Amino acid sequence: MSIVDDVSRPSRLAEPDEGISIEELALAARNHGLPLEALRYDVTPVGLHYLLIHYDIPALDPERHVLTIDGRVDRSLRLDLAALRERPRVTRRVTLECAGNGRALLSPRPVSQPWLSEAVGTAEWTGTPLAPLLREAGLGPDAVDVVFTGADHGVERGIEQDYQRGLPVPEALREEVLLAYEMNGAPLLPQHGAPLRLVVPGWYGMAHVKWLTRISVLDREFDGYQNAVAYRVRTDADDPGVPVTRIEPRALVQPPGFPDFMSRIRVLRPGPCTVEGRAWSGHAPVTRVEVTTDGGASWSDATLDPTGPVDRAGATGSAGSAGDPSVTGPDGREPGGSTVDERWAWRRWRYEWTANPGRYTLGARATDASGRVQPVDPPWNRGGFANNLVQRVEVVVPEDQ
Amino acid sequence: MSIVDDVSRPSRLAEPDEGISIEELALAARNHGLPLEALRYDVTPVGLHYLLIHYDIPALDPERHVLTIDGRVDRSLRLDLAALRERPRVTRRVTLECAGNGRALLSPRPVSQPWLSEAVGTAEWTGTPLAPLLREAGLGPDAVDVVFTGADHGVERGIEQDYQRGLPVPEALREEVLLAYEMNGAPLLPQHGAPLRLVVPGWYGMAHVKWLTRISVLDREFDGYQNAVAYRVRTDADDPGVPVTRIEPRALVQPPGFPDFMSRIRVLRPGPCTVEGRAWSGHAPVTRVEVTTDGGASWSDATLDPTGPVDRAGATGSAGSAGDPSVTGPDGREPGGSTVDERWAWRRWRYEWTANPGRYTLGARATDASGRVQPVDPPWNRGGFANNLVQRVEVVVPEDQ
Repeated sequence: MSIVDDVSRPSRLAEPDEGISIEELALAARNHGLPLEALRYDVTPVGLHYLLIHYDIPALDPERHVLTIDGRVDRSLRLDLAALRERPRVTRRVTLECAGNGRALLSPRPVSQPWLSEAVGTAEWTGTPLAPLLREAGLGPDAVDVVFTGADHGVERGIEQDYQRGLPVPEALREEVLLAYEMNGAPLLPQHGAPLRLVVPGWYGMAHVKWLTRISVLDREFDGYQNAVAYRVRTDADDPGVPVTRIEPRALVQPPGFPDFMSRIRVLRPGPCTVEGRAWSGHAPVTRVEVTTDGGASWSDATLDPTGPVDRAGATGSAGSAGDPSVTGPDGREPGGSTVDERWAWRRWRYEWTANPGRYTLGARATDASGRVQPVDPPWNRGGFANNLVQRVEVVVPEDQ
Repeated sequence: MSIVDDVSRPSRLAEPDEGISIEELALAARNHGLPLEALRYDVTPVGLHYLLIHYDIPALDPERHVLTIDGRVDRSLRLDLAALRERPRVTRRVTLECAGNGRALLSPRPVSQPWLSEAVGTAEWTGTPLAPLLREAGLGPDAVDVVFTGADHGVERGIEQDYQRGLPVPEALREEVLLAYEMNGAPLLPQHGAPLRLVVPGWYGMAHVKWLTRISVLDREFDGYQNAVAYRVRTDADDPGVPVTRIEPRALVQPPGFPDFMSRIRVLRPGPCTVEGRAWSGHAPVTRVEVTTDGGASWSDATLDPTGPVDRAGATGSAGSAGDPSVTGPDGREPGGSTVDERWAWRRWRYEWTANPGRYTLGARATDASGRVQPVDPPWNRGGFANNLVQRVEVVVPEDQ
């Protein structure tokens, strides 16, 4: 088909000295990251959460939107938003990260969405659990994968497609998986999947299918593009690889002091400084965060906040103006009394540091309860996926004046 | 001062074959543009409006925020948000554009925030007019410039500063200039200047100072960094140049069809197609939009929407879920009855096209009532400011299948 040759090109790695191309820049201008100072907010204000949109944001009418559940089920279901809103309502605070986070820092650099280390965000997603719906439809005994289809349509490496991604049945049946219609207490925004999206806590963003139109149960592994071709960890182009699934542990430093506009190098006044940040993992709870101020030569333990995020609308006044601080109170309960599940949200950490005049490279690394430790050297693969290299925050502490 | 040498470097132009640097990419990952399909919304949904933040988003407490008005005035004023909210309330629909829009497409390329053509957005800003406040403070007879100071703090080309930008007194006294505390019917988001910002309809974004803390009246031209050094149109580094002020006319095409993920080239089915887009100017109303499908070799007139944006919350269902469609009704009136001023908002245009199989380069150019015509060749200057070159949208129309 001529479209293939005309608009799509094969995946490739950048040459050693090749700067970021205009194509990569065009993706970066659309799909933005979390400004790192926004790590200060327990819940990321609307508009600061990272975005990765493969094609165009579709224009969907929430009044006419219908979700179809079909395939290897006893009975197909068709549900509009009103029907979904009548079902049990749950809110979960979930940290999402793009599977390609860190890609632009790899060498050689896979040419795709050029993330540095900011493709993350935490939101409160409200919707109805998926599992009861699948049980209502009645999963066939031969069900293997559940395929989620979005309304976003485009071409990728020559394949014209609606965005589709499959989940193994046991993952789709996890109680935490939501069909979400609200984010931070308001209807989903167009760019976050309005009017309906999937939320799969613990998994990288590619699993959280937006603009959800259809859920199909298959009696085989889904071999569509995003499962079989795109989101796979491969050593080279011929390696079949393994699918990208859960989020590897990562910690980020909220850069202290203030920045230079262009270099983003930080200036920090000498003296005591609380270095803060967030850490998360999709495999298991974060159990340890270590901090370096010398680019990884030495490490010190940070203090983890004991029970997940605590300061809600109080200390972070600006966050209140972003979402809706009334959705949940400071105790993590919804006004109606139901608890917001925060198990899948990032965890705040702090490290007390005395900044003496000089130059420093700050970073942090996370360990989770599964024993995974964030590596200092980036784990390279051809797509630049699940790359949880340690961030580098350059800080200059001038002489006191 | 050591900070200067350590964190800031002089402005420069990229070498002819130099790709986008990691520093430029870091700015692009923070400061995102409007995804061009979002040109479909009369009012840009929250989170899709372009952002340009020089330093960090500051953390301000709206409850404690105070605006000071001082300098060459008869009496200084100190107003908190409650006091500002008690004053007359006005909503204006205003298109904002970054002065650096288009910079990354220039040759040679000024190294700074690397915009392509998407640094634009339209919001409904609600606040209180500035002029009555200045009159209440009493402008001295020797007043020349009014300086607006934000709470965002950083270093730029070696100069540590709070972001400050001055306006000539006659501009500051224009009835349209607002101190805004709401955007699209909700309190300002942190990244848009919460809790208070300036809105100067018709001017590029650098004038709309965010996180506003102080308004000072000077008896001379303001010679601070953002007026005297940064935002100036210069032919070379030694040229003192002229300040960047109002938005030059520009039209953008909402890309038709659907995209390839990586190249963003569009695929469009053959047949009739309404090519749509928006056009704006900060000098005078847009009076004409011309469309090209052959990269500028020939032009045809588009049809302008007769009276500014018309379809509000109705046709663009998703826009309703983003902002608050109840703020103003479809007739452009607020619930209380006051009219939303749309004179400073972009204008929709349409062009009926029959797409035959082939390759096309679409673009559009605007003319305004002041006689300014958008140039096909980019008007180069050393900072890459006010560069309203014509956009290029690559479209492939495959053979019908």
